[in-house]
Amino acid sequence: MIVHKYLDIPPTEDAPGVLRRVVIGPDEGAPRFIMRVFHVEPGCSTPFHSHWWEHEVFVLEGDGVVKSREDESKIGEGMVVFIAPNEEHCFTNTGNGVLRFICVIPLS
Amino acid sequence: MIVHKYLDIPPTEDAPGVLRRVVIGPDEGAPRFIMRVFHVEPGCSTPFHSHWWEHEVFVLEGDGVVKSREDESKIGEGMVVFIAPNEEHCFTNTGNGVLRFICVIPLS
Repeated sequence: MIVHKYLDIPPTEDAPGVLRRVVIGPDEGAPRFIMRVFHVEPGCSTPFHSHWWEHEVFVLEGDGVVKSREDESKIGEGMVVFIAPNEEHCFTNTGNGVLRFICVIPLS
Repeated sequence: MIVHKYLDIPPTEDAPGVLRRVVIGPDEGAPRFIMRVFHVEPGCSTPFHSHWWEHEVFVLEGDGVVKSREDESKIGEGMVVFIAPNEEHCFTNTGNGVLRFICVIPLS
């Protein structure tokens, strides 16, 4: 088994104000899916896009919205979001503090 | 897309003092893996067992230990745990408050 603090993983900047950490992935031996943690700064957003894989999201902290082509929902601590494969989406921080969420995706 | 509060999902009691919620699963259309959230009461523990599937865990709150046959580690908020397929393990709450963690597994 492998145990570590997620903040010890170096982040990559996916977009302005959007940091992504792969906290459990191929380096840990994950065979099927990987866990990432995102930090989104106030006013910043992940890109509006779609892809073949789903997202399973748990919001750790902050206030934001998640948008699809047809829909928009407020999100906050303790909320979960399922984005189906090929569904367009983005996550935007609408609050004053960081928006932090876990996002699990299949291993490509 | 589906958005809800994880606490709105009714829990099942897996063991004394151990509540499990499937917060994203087949009901939401998850095709490959499912997200669960566990609440473990002080002094309580998930069973020491193994199975073919891996665990990808994120600790939300509390203090505990995760044990395997060879190893034992303290866990707390912001720590992640990878349990490989077929590795024996259990999670025990050693603190005074609830131990809460996310645990993602493949869909069987």
